[in-house]
Amino acid sequence: MLLGSIEAGGTKFVCAVGNEDYRTMDKTQFPTTTPEETLQKCIDYFKKFDDLKAIGISSFGPIELRKNSPKYGYITNTPKPGWADVDFVGTIKKAFDVPIHWTTDVNGSAYGEYVISTLFNEHLNSLVYYTIGTGVGAGAIVNGQFIGDLGHPEMGHVRLKRHPDDLDFKGICPYHGDCLEGLVSGPTFEARTGKKGQDVPLTDHVWDIMAFYVAQAAIQVTLTLRPGKIVFGGGVVSEEFLKKVRGQFDKLMNGYINVGKLEDYIVMPAIKENGSATFGDFALALLEYRK
Amino acid sequence: MLLGSIEAGGTKFVCAVGNEDYRTMDKTQFPTTTPEETLQKCIDYFKKFDDLKAIGISSFGPIELRKNSPKYGYITNTPKPGWADVDFVGTIKKAFDVPIHWTTDVNGSAYGEYVISTLFNEHLNSLVYYTIGTGVGAGAIVNGQFIGDLGHPEMGHVRLKRHPDDLDFKGICPYHGDCLEGLVSGPTFEARTGKKGQDVPLTDHVWDIMAFYVAQAAIQVTLTLRPGKIVFGGGVVSEEFLKKVRGQFDKLMNGYINVGKLEDYIVMPAIKENGSATFGDFALALLEYRK
Repeated sequence: MLLGSIEAGGTKFVCAVGNEDYRTMDKTQFPTTTPEETLQKCIDYFKKFDDLKAIGISSFGPIELRKNSPKYGYITNTPKPGWADVDFVGTIKKAFDVPIHWTTDVNGSAYGEYVISTLFNEHLNSLVYYTIGTGVGAGAIVNGQFIGDLGHPEMGHVRLKRHPDDLDFKGICPYHGDCLEGLVSGPTFEARTGKKGQDVPLTDHVWDIMAFYVAQAAIQVTLTLRPGKIVFGGGVVSEEFLKKVRGQFDKLMNGYINVGKLEDYIVMPAIKENGSATFGDFALALLEYRK
Repeated sequence: MLLGSIEAGGTKFVCAVGNEDYRTMDKTQFPTTTPEETLQKCIDYFKKFDDLKAIGISSFGPIELRKNSPKYGYITNTPKPGWADVDFVGTIKKAFDVPIHWTTDVNGSAYGEYVISTLFNEHLNSLVYYTIGTGVGAGAIVNGQFIGDLGHPEMGHVRLKRHPDDLDFKGICPYHGDCLEGLVSGPTFEARTGKKGQDVPLTDHVWDIMAFYVAQAAIQVTLTLRPGKIVFGGGVVSEEFLKKVRGQFDKLMNGYINVGKLEDYIVMPAIKENGSATFGDFALALLEYRK
């Protein structure tokens, strides 16, 4: 059985075909240009494969995922030029009459990491996946399901207690200034230090400030969802950085609740090479097929 | 059919008996003393009723609600003298061989408000209930279920952006200082102003500071869970105060996502006279009975 995956990012699209074991058989990627051109490329790619049974799509957003909305399957009010109000699912569905699973990019990644994690821990039934890159977003699985009554989570925009050495930094979120994304997304390095993130050594104090904020996000989501695991992906994240995050988390939590070994709780993605969303898409496509 | 409810608070217990329509037929309350005496009073109360089919318990915490734990049904490491490591469910179960539903006080209230709300809005499938009183806690329903893989939510202890006019106040949480509970629980009025909350007029600026923090909690939970509704109960909350909270929420959200009419989204309990938990207990007892 062949399953399709579209990981739709604001910069590039990754299309892949996999089997029932969620193993990638073939994969391609191309830059995100206009919706017409980019979605046509997806269609052309999948046309090469006979007998595609279902497709999982993980998309940048915001997107409409309330099934009772007439705009279900659309990218909604994105600031990305040309992409607002685009009927993503409808366009793909016209070309392929197969079941399609539709969710956010971070939900797709969360699901991939969740499926992998349950292989090793059968009691796990919730997981949160954060990406910290150009922007900050998160997806969540609770009781084995995605969450959100009025839409998908937007955890990148929560407010945080400011670090005493960072009070003068206004933050760069155009909506909120110093929300999580405004304080820790990749471009904050240039805003704070004039240097790109990859050029700022981990010994620089700015990484402690970053860890203080990211740890607070982990605390918020821990106290709100009590998830089994929190996964951090995205260009800003490294194992060395997560060590700092764990240290701050421990200090801020102050023994209040027990989350088990922090090294197993706050982790990098188990699926390497940014493959979490593709893996998740295959699993979600299969779920959709079996419905 | 008769259903039982125990709302176990740190100060008082409320026991009640109701029918399948969750209507209270009889009710009593008594102060929380030792576990032996207090739980015996619950047992003596329910013994008066023949044919009790199930009992719902909503308890102060922290409690163990992971079914695979040997301590399931216990109050765990509460600072309340005598009550740590008490087998609440086991004690009741020994007296009544009926199905028992066990959850936190705020989850019980959340469930009561959820059931009532779904009568008016069939699309609602998630709700958050905060209590702001002596302490701050919250319960949550997501996709019709309670949440928490490693335990129940503890949303009272999240960190927040500090109000510029409140930077000198250290907060009163013994664990975290200036977490949500440390900044907005009832006793913070005395700590900040030397006066009890009920003696501080709503025109006092301290209420704006409180609203700024409570609005941030609502923002966090909105961006994390995207619930259909947020209910605020507890002694500190009034409709006048929630007006201030809605104003701050609107300002902080800055149009980022749409939650519908704020007057329908951030609300007081629909069930009056602190009856949310009893109502929720009846509904949960019935669920447990029908399992």
